[in-house]
Amino acid sequence: MDLRKQVQEKIDNKTKPVSSLGLLETIALKVAMVQQTPEPEIRQPHVVVFAGDHGIAKTGLVNPYPAYVTAAMVHNFMAGGAAINVFCRQHQLGLTIVDAGVDADLSRYHGNPSFIDAKIARGTNNYQFEAAMSFAEMERAIGAGAFIVKEIAKRGTNTIAFGEMGIGNSSAASLLMSTIMRLPLSRTVGKGTGANSAQLAQKRSTLQEVLDQHEAICQLNSPLKSLQYFGGYEIAMMAGAYLGARESNLVIVVDGFIASAALLVAHAIQPAVLDNCIFGHCSGELGHHAILHYLDAQPLLNIGLRLGEGTGAALAIPLVQSAVAFQREMAGMETLVSANQERLEA
Amino acid sequence: MDLRKQVQEKIDNKTKPVSSLGLLETIALKVAMVQQTPEPEIRQPHVVVFAGDHGIAKTGLVNPYPAYVTAAMVHNFMAGGAAINVFCRQHQLGLTIVDAGVDADLSRYHGNPSFIDAKIARGTNNYQFEAAMSFAEMERAIGAGAFIVKEIAKRGTNTIAFGEMGIGNSSAASLLMSTIMRLPLSRTVGKGTGANSAQLAQKRSTLQEVLDQHEAICQLNSPLKSLQYFGGYEIAMMAGAYLGARESNLVIVVDGFIASAALLVAHAIQPAVLDNCIFGHCSGELGHHAILHYLDAQPLLNIGLRLGEGTGAALAIPLVQSAVAFQREMAGMETLVSANQERLEA
Repeated sequence: MDLRKQVQEKIDNKTKPVSSLGLLETIALKVAMVQQTPEPEIRQPHVVVFAGDHGIAKTGLVNPYPAYVTAAMVHNFMAGGAAINVFCRQHQLGLTIVDAGVDADLSRYHGNPSFIDAKIARGTNNYQFEAAMSFAEMERAIGAGAFIVKEIAKRGTNTIAFGEMGIGNSSAASLLMSTIMRLPLSRTVGKGTGANSAQLAQKRSTLQEVLDQHEAICQLNSPLKSLQYFGGYEIAMMAGAYLGARESNLVIVVDGFIASAALLVAHAIQPAVLDNCIFGHCSGELGHHAILHYLDAQPLLNIGLRLGEGTGAALAIPLVQSAVAFQREMAGMETLVSANQERLEA
Repeated sequence: MDLRKQVQEKIDNKTKPVSSLGLLETIALKVAMVQQTPEPEIRQPHVVVFAGDHGIAKTGLVNPYPAYVTAAMVHNFMAGGAAINVFCRQHQLGLTIVDAGVDADLSRYHGNPSFIDAKIARGTNNYQFEAAMSFAEMERAIGAGAFIVKEIAKRGTNTIAFGEMGIGNSSAASLLMSTIMRLPLSRTVGKGTGANSAQLAQKRSTLQEVLDQHEAICQLNSPLKSLQYFGGYEIAMMAGAYLGARESNLVIVVDGFIASAALLVAHAIQPAVLDNCIFGHCSGELGHHAILHYLDAQPLLNIGLRLGEGTGAALAIPLVQSAVAFQREMAGMETLVSANQERLEA
């Protein structure tokens, strides 16, 4: 019997009405198929947060928070005080912070096992005037992301989630989404970390000018060129991380808007990456629902999260563990039959 | 400063965009208000599953599974093989199984600390012909539910969820919902554990006859009379459990359709019970969304669960714990300011 059918029959034979565990049943099957076993397991789940700065953020045109907050939040991650630290502690998830391109000297963390220095440069160029990065830098970022994930996988992790920190990166994500999905900015630009309506209008008009400025690039329909022109280093590295996770055959729990925009790039390069993806949540950020629809994704949570850092994925990992656990641990229908037998004989 | 404002300011000062943790922020505030402290905590969270049989279930008119499955599932709970066992183990939740009125001899579990014998009778009467129980039995069931919860609270639990097991009890829940919310059965009767469309049609027509038969009772607009006539012992006991949880000032995590129907009764008796309730999920069962809307509830999960046993609540408790944890453990904005100060001075 083929594995898919075998696993589905096992799920259907559990002591519960057929399909009554809803999306958890879909996920139980998915994890079994990724791991190619009727006895899947979630081992050493790990969150990797990629941080990077964006040239545009220095202008303040698209971001309510100042650019220095990227570095300040890296310090917060390393001190254990951010939301992602809290949720990783709660659920015993590994956590690695990657400097993909923060505009600060973070050398104080060298040697800390939770920190990886993969800095490409101290922030990207401002895409109002030029490409965010060179093509070679983008390739290095993608390669670094894939390498980092494969190293984590070698240490025994089979389930991974990616988060990000980068003031201004919801704008990069919107530009990627607009160019890859061919959607107007009105459908891809949201409030990010909390722009008010005047700030949102300014963000949209600024990004429209950017698209007009680089129209020839957009016309190429090349996700990699879009990534080079608009992407942050942390987004490029995350795109590579998805590819590395696919190559290492990990279960990938996808976070919110920016993580999904990076996945759009990875998916354009390697569509099969979706076979490994479980979608942690639908973010409160405007464009996320449309990306999820485009990727035919069913998110686990929909509770208005829009924080990033991988928090939505981290909160969803226990549900993935529940899906695997019920499939492994629940009794089969034969238990109920034998209980009835005993009753009839009594 | 009043507590609500104090807690909200504390939440808003965390190192994250304001309101970016969505529903978790609402819940963090709610738990703080229930516990009347800016430092709330979730202590020894516990799931209580009430089991009972329904006279109507012997006819097979409303239930795809035979009535003996109630008792068989109690044996499964006690052996640790049901879905609720798996999720309670995963999240280290206490679990107590209560015999509210199972039609079987369960005396073998006497003395087991996970089992409570509160049996009112071996199953209710068939409400096609008479009231499911006497008014005195209903009062005993409500009292027992409240007592059981208060005893659990005395042992240190401050957060509780209720589940149920009872073949036929989605029909009782639909009848309660229809009479309390004044809704036609077309909006309250769903597939339960998995009726096909012929079975669903039969379930609806059977229950319509029941409502017609007891029209005078329905006209009383008395939630308690409805509970007496249609309710199972497990539903009456659960209604009492909500009231006991409110009296013991517990955080209550509400499960799905049947648990919410029991809450409708408790709410009619004591509307303030809602101040203690967090809604674990929106079930895949037809009527649940309307009950949640009626109670102005925002559920945490919406992943098509329709299993009962308290499973949806158990899966949501980690999110409640996350809400409390971020509120307690995250750093405040002053951390980012001091990081910037350090940068400027460097």
